[in-house]
Amino acid sequence: MTNLCPIMHPVAGVYLGSCAAKIKKNGNPDLVIMELTEGALTVASFTLNAFCAAPVTLAKEHLKSHSPRALLINSGNANAGTGAQGMADARQSCAWVAAELGCLPEQVLPFSTGVIGQNLPMEKLHEGIPQALANLSITGWEEACKGIMTTDLVPKAISREVKVDGHSVMITGISKGSGMIHPNMATMLGFVATDAKINQACLQQALTDSVNLSFNRITVDGDTSTNDACTLTATQKADMPTIDEVNSNAYADFSNAINDVMIELAQMIIRDGEGATKFVTVAVEGGKSTEECLKVAHAVALSPLVKTALFASDPNWGRILAAVGRSGVDKLDVNTLKIYLGDVCIVENGGKALSYTEEAGQAVMNETDITILIQLNRGSVNETVWTTDFSYDYVKINAEYRS
Amino acid sequence: MTNLCPIMHPVAGVYLGSCAAKIKKNGNPDLVIMELTEGALTVASFTLNAFCAAPVTLAKEHLKSHSPRALLINSGNANAGTGAQGMADARQSCAWVAAELGCLPEQVLPFSTGVIGQNLPMEKLHEGIPQALANLSITGWEEACKGIMTTDLVPKAISREVKVDGHSVMITGISKGSGMIHPNMATMLGFVATDAKINQACLQQALTDSVNLSFNRITVDGDTSTNDACTLTATQKADMPTIDEVNSNAYADFSNAINDVMIELAQMIIRDGEGATKFVTVAVEGGKSTEECLKVAHAVALSPLVKTALFASDPNWGRILAAVGRSGVDKLDVNTLKIYLGDVCIVENGGKALSYTEEAGQAVMNETDITILIQLNRGSVNETVWTTDFSYDYVKINAEYRS
Repeated sequence: MTNLCPIMHPVAGVYLGSCAAKIKKNGNPDLVIMELTEGALTVASFTLNAFCAAPVTLAKEHLKSHSPRALLINSGNANAGTGAQGMADARQSCAWVAAELGCLPEQVLPFSTGVIGQNLPMEKLHEGIPQALANLSITGWEEACKGIMTTDLVPKAISREVKVDGHSVMITGISKGSGMIHPNMATMLGFVATDAKINQACLQQALTDSVNLSFNRITVDGDTSTNDACTLTATQKADMPTIDEVNSNAYADFSNAINDVMIELAQMIIRDGEGATKFVTVAVEGGKSTEECLKVAHAVALSPLVKTALFASDPNWGRILAAVGRSGVDKLDVNTLKIYLGDVCIVENGGKALSYTEEAGQAVMNETDITILIQLNRGSVNETVWTTDFSYDYVKINAEYRS
Repeated sequence: MTNLCPIMHPVAGVYLGSCAAKIKKNGNPDLVIMELTEGALTVASFTLNAFCAAPVTLAKEHLKSHSPRALLINSGNANAGTGAQGMADARQSCAWVAAELGCLPEQVLPFSTGVIGQNLPMEKLHEGIPQALANLSITGWEEACKGIMTTDLVPKAISREVKVDGHSVMITGISKGSGMIHPNMATMLGFVATDAKINQACLQQALTDSVNLSFNRITVDGDTSTNDACTLTATQKADMPTIDEVNSNAYADFSNAINDVMIELAQMIIRDGEGATKFVTVAVEGGKSTEECLKVAHAVALSPLVKTALFASDPNWGRILAAVGRSGVDKLDVNTLKIYLGDVCIVENGGKALSYTEEAGQAVMNETDITILIQLNRGSVNETVWTTDFSYDYVKINAEYRS
């Protein structure tokens, strides 16, 4: 990855304004407003953490009753663990944006990422909001991308022109997060916009499906944040018939394109995990259900023993085998499953594969991108998750984060 | 903890012999045989890992049909991931012991701990078994304790004379394991013997209950081994009436004493976790069920973010809050729960406790023994687990283990 954003194509009907409101100590941009044209539809997906932050609670509430006209995003402060004051602050922030834009406060969705447990610096927000609005522009994506970063080392953005049943559609999105390795600053946020014409139900379906294939499939350490959120906005500005049926070629094209964008944005977060030296794909094939495939995948992806072996480039197949074995899948028959490291079979018939050699395993482990494939051979469901290794730097970063 | 065993009282009817069969490279004792007197009853609890090792499979099989007369334990090789050859080797080992002792092979229970995926060195076992048997003695506990160690830094043993409904009963036990931080060498094994007179059903109940309160409540990194096992033998030699009813004072006394011994043996494993700098108690109170209490306890105890904060002695309450929030307990009301660090309330009313100060939290975090208490306030079930922090050494030990 590079420190440069890719070329970010504007999306008709989306205007972005950013400023440095000094919420972040380093003086980088930390306040972003996305104004959405009248008639744009926005759907969102939020963290399942029971301790969700005030802006998450408020954004859900606003989405129930109104169609959003603006997204307000601040970095540097998560407004989480802030109780009643946090809710009041989130409401006030939305009201300030609404007053400037001439919409209802309920038409503004708030998002925050940063330190947990400190109240929002309301004066800075009050001063920053007009500044951010003053530079609203359809070309503001790159600044916005930088404005939502916290401990991210690189900006995460993608922009694609795709064909939807023959019609040109633009999709541009940004994300942030260092793979949950900075808990207080590690919110995963994603904001994707398209000019596609599509109804609410189809848009919601496309978001739900794509988040399940992307943000819900990446994991560094199993910790999910209080603030995670992802939005998908369709401005309806493209020259095309409205997608109003999930069983259509147009929906299939659109859905595939959104999946690709979301997966890429999510994988960028994993690749930017500080302390991460490996990009690891854990694929589980032949399960009876999504649930059991994910149990196995997460047992392997989250095992500290597997992750430290990955860091050491050590083809320690016994750790992978033990992790699969303890995954809790009912009646798992260890004699019929197979485990591969890259294209090297490491486990079959309940033990080390006869064909396995340490040299072959080592060759795979020496790569930066590694795939662990587990074939359960008991069903037809496949699932994939992406993760990183555990390095000295993981401990260093997380042990020293607040000191 | 010290490197010295406590005084180990013999248990009438239990004879222990050890030798250095050179299965371990360092020349330390690695083969232990416990001969059990005629009439002794033995119950056992095994790993739930689907990839259980050959000796675990065989020990379960033997226990179904016969009353054990001997336990055969080797360290240095786990005989796991060894397929059909592993089973044949385990059977042969039992047959050799049986031939020497004049019992059936099915009356010998095998246990192995050490490297995964290598076949047992059968010649060394064949030579070692007579050597170990040659020094069978009721005073052989200390040697046995050292003989089952792998990467353990200290021997783990306990011996107590207790009163069971007024009668003196001896309980002596040994355990090994470095808290699962050495996956291939980290099997948790526990062997406890008592001279109590007790029937099979009561003995089994005492073991099941005590393992649930001890070995099943310790966790370093969530990885369970292919070889974990714990046995409880009652030789029936004590001068007392037989305990044959769980609803009796005698059973209550016995059960409490076994619980204490098992918890102490299990906690010794946590304290010996290499890389561990903290001993952490995670207590969950007021849950609706054991299951939900353990979900919360494990979410906190296994969170790498919480564990690295513990290593840094950082009172990062936001990480604990986030871990509780993502524990997956249904309808968890974050506004009614409370979280304490030692006796300092850190979370209440859905956010940081108003009374909380960084100084108070820091004072608790500076201790070596730390208690995190989560009061769910929605039921009457309490559960406790014990764990450690994540240190640089955790990564170092596990990354460099095989190189």
